[in-house]
Amino acid sequence: MDWLALDGTARRQAISAAQARVAGHARVTPVAQLRLGGFDVDVKLEQMQHTGSFKARGAFNNLLTREVPSAGVVAASGGNHGAAVAHAAASLGYPAHIFVPEVAGPAKIAVIERAGATCHVVPGLYADAQEAALDHEARTGAMQVHPYDIPETVAGQGTCFAEWEDQGLDADTVVIAVGGGGLISGAYSWFADRRRVVAVEPETSRALNAALAAGAPVDVPVSGVAANALGAKRIGSICFGLAQGQTSVTVTDDAIVAAQQMLWQEARLLVEPSGAAALAALTSGVYVPSEGERVAVLICGANPAPDPFAES
Amino acid sequence: MDWLALDGTARRQAISAAQARVAGHARVTPVAQLRLGGFDVDVKLEQMQHTGSFKARGAFNNLLTREVPSAGVVAASGGNHGAAVAHAAASLGYPAHIFVPEVAGPAKIAVIERAGATCHVVPGLYADAQEAALDHEARTGAMQVHPYDIPETVAGQGTCFAEWEDQGLDADTVVIAVGGGGLISGAYSWFADRRRVVAVEPETSRALNAALAAGAPVDVPVSGVAANALGAKRIGSICFGLAQGQTSVTVTDDAIVAAQQMLWQEARLLVEPSGAAALAALTSGVYVPSEGERVAVLICGANPAPDPFAES
Repeated sequence: MDWLALDGTARRQAISAAQARVAGHARVTPVAQLRLGGFDVDVKLEQMQHTGSFKARGAFNNLLTREVPSAGVVAASGGNHGAAVAHAAASLGYPAHIFVPEVAGPAKIAVIERAGATCHVVPGLYADAQEAALDHEARTGAMQVHPYDIPETVAGQGTCFAEWEDQGLDADTVVIAVGGGGLISGAYSWFADRRRVVAVEPETSRALNAALAAGAPVDVPVSGVAANALGAKRIGSICFGLAQGQTSVTVTDDAIVAAQQMLWQEARLLVEPSGAAALAALTSGVYVPSEGERVAVLICGANPAPDPFAES
Repeated sequence: MDWLALDGTARRQAISAAQARVAGHARVTPVAQLRLGGFDVDVKLEQMQHTGSFKARGAFNNLLTREVPSAGVVAASGGNHGAAVAHAAASLGYPAHIFVPEVAGPAKIAVIERAGATCHVVPGLYADAQEAALDHEARTGAMQVHPYDIPETVAGQGTCFAEWEDQGLDADTVVIAVGGGGLISGAYSWFADRRRVVAVEPETSRALNAALAAGAPVDVPVSGVAANALGAKRIGSICFGLAQGQTSVTVTDDAIVAAQQMLWQEARLLVEPSGAAALAALTSGVYVPSEGERVAVLICGANPAPDPFAES
């Protein structure tokens, strides 16, 4: 399946099919209306998803769609995708090997190990973990689960938005954090031109923003507080293809940390920096809604470091 | 108004009136279905209420019902009630003085101060804070807001359950943590004989459990992980009056801490011990649902210590 070659109807059908497939595996996450930083926003608490991020949706969709070999599954991950693949594999009875860069950190590594996978910590950056995962695939025949740039992952993440509409989403604009672009590709595909989608990236890892400016995916430097979740070096080709003409903004690390603190202090939502990035676009004034524009914000991840229940 | 002298219809009407009164002030908190410790449970995320606990409902109902003198309001509190009264007072433009025992701890004191109240830390236990608050009332004429044993508070807390039914609550049994009994009095009054209500207390502060055993409210020793939230020395008279013939169980501190950790690891809900006590009754096997019994658990508070965003 070539996601970009599908028409809008086929993309939505693929997401609907994924929604039926992952039902009972991925969790239906709650929605709420909150007033945050002077804005009335609809939020979806997708950080309550299994293993603490939306990634479980794409992981289950991959493992329930594709044929899993006896060598099981393999994934490279900054942490959240790996935890999701580990959880989906354990839940469906497959072995899983997850390759993470050191930047993933002990909190995310613990989530992966608790989920029952073999976790390999690779010296260097995400690209090094990716290389190690490809090597593992070549050696063992394990099924590679790409975190964002394959149709099964995009369709899986898209179920988040189909579900949100089932729950009565009533917004003109949906604000979403972007790493490699799997989640927002699901949003572009599901909402099409029915709602505005705002892509938010940290200034310190602006793969989509830079690609839109350059007219093609380009490598960007990656650093900052959300690096282990949003730090894709280059935007996925599916996301780049869908993002043409869409709104892309960047936020500072300070704005992310302030939004993270606001979510805790105002609503007792403890999220990781990436989980607060979308809100930061609103609360730091980078995205200014028009008069009367109804805005929704996806809270996408909550595997903060340090983990509040880490063994000390 | 004498709450116990009202008939069931009048109590429900008082709660409905409170629900209309606090609308737009108290937050509508989300609900979710989770699988936790092998149980399918409906949960209401009342820890997302303003200032991190259900107490904001009763606080707003008091301040919107009773005439507030120029001296403002005063409350004694283990922390959560004080934060709620502080928030409601600030939000409605009244000065507030909150008296807390040292056991409230820096996290809760910070919430009270952030909400804009004058916080007085009283040496000793909750009873000492209560005495200081009564003294402040006598000296200044400020309006005392009792945390659990007055009709305005009970009706306010009851709005949590009216709201839950508006959100489609579909459970035979609702499991609720008990301190002084204001919250569960709201539940007894709203649900009456339509649903079973299970009262959960820590073994280390079992004011209701001991009162039911003794046939009258009696003083109990208070200690343990949830002491600053559930540590009432004696159950409120309203609660005792309503609780006759109802199910009361106790849980160990270990069970509470395990449930608290489960809520984080399984659903990224960071709550304080009291907020996990109701779940602990299920997950530790103290309350065993019958085959097919649909169980709902109220997650009631999330002002943990240390606060994850405390200035260090």
